[in-house]
Amino acid sequence: MANELEGRTVAILATDGVEQVELTQPREELQAAGARVDLVSLSTGSIQAMNGDIDKADTFDVDHAVGDVSAEGYDALVLPGGTMNPDTLRTDAAAVAFVQAFFRAGKPVGAICHGPWTLIEADVVRGRTLTSFPSIRTDLRNAGATVVDEQVVCDEGLVTSRNPDDLDAFCAKLIEEFEEGKHPVLREGATA
Amino acid sequence: MANELEGRTVAILATDGVEQVELTQPREELQAAGARVDLVSLSTGSIQAMNGDIDKADTFDVDHAVGDVSAEGYDALVLPGGTMNPDTLRTDAAAVAFVQAFFRAGKPVGAICHGPWTLIEADVVRGRTLTSFPSIRTDLRNAGATVVDEQVVCDEGLVTSRNPDDLDAFCAKLIEEFEEGKHPVLREGATA
Repeated sequence: MANELEGRTVAILATDGVEQVELTQPREELQAAGARVDLVSLSTGSIQAMNGDIDKADTFDVDHAVGDVSAEGYDALVLPGGTMNPDTLRTDAAAVAFVQAFFRAGKPVGAICHGPWTLIEADVVRGRTLTSFPSIRTDLRNAGATVVDEQVVCDEGLVTSRNPDDLDAFCAKLIEEFEEGKHPVLREGATA
Repeated sequence: MANELEGRTVAILATDGVEQVELTQPREELQAAGARVDLVSLSTGSIQAMNGDIDKADTFDVDHAVGDVSAEGYDALVLPGGTMNPDTLRTDAAAVAFVQAFFRAGKPVGAICHGPWTLIEADVVRGRTLTSFPSIRTDLRNAGATVVDEQVVCDEGLVTSRNPDDLDAFCAKLIEEFEEGKHPVLREGATA
């Protein structure tokens, strides 16, 4: 099963406050499957990861600022959690447009924990079924999503999970969906 | 103008991740106006405040666990911000019920920065006009609120502000509204 993602390029979009393991484990598993993985953030330099939102963890070098890249250059997108991370990403127009472009193109997207919060700002959850950290579920429902409480949910190329405990299942499903590639038929409500 | 709040009792509801100055400045100003101010949290002990969400600041002793008190014992409520703080509060049924009880009773409530996020879970923003930190405005609109970008907004006893820079105006309006007391006429959508 190795090298399923050979030749694929994946963007992980994150900023300060990202939950460290939700950045590192998907990156490692995607790389182990053969993908090239870029850390994309609001600007170049490095970002501060956290453990459990409240304890500073490591910093990570950013590969590209989101304003300097395009979804056209990637096959898939991953949105890790950490409360502060999407809280900041969703206020950035370039970050929101980057996310929307993956949905418009039918490219697979994974989001875990608080990661789906950015999808609300991108207005791409309407009519979709997904899961998330419990705190943002009312916001997701108010944005038109159907929210369920499952380890991993896949809806037409959108893979979501609840928290770091789900990472094994999340990463396995990411690899499966990212290998499958584009989902040509998108629901109307799922396009930005 | 001193002692406007003599004899009034105010609850500040917060937990770990509260933005420190949004806890301390309202508390000091309300106390200086003569109010008794209790820090109410999810459990007794202490809570960890943050500066700018990412740097640990001081810890603060909790006066009462939210499950041990009732809105009947308070004249007004303050909800400080800090991203993690309401993210946790809104997942706690007792905290959400405590907030709802102030609205049902027509008692004044102040919320700053990410503080209004908890009001979404309490479903008390429908039909109201308020402000907040930019990141949660789409969620507030999706929950039925009208969101404006002003230093301080007051809608029938609900006082809201955007960030720590607004604290002086926020605290002045809190004292004014808390002195005025209950707002007997509540819009239908504003009751929980």
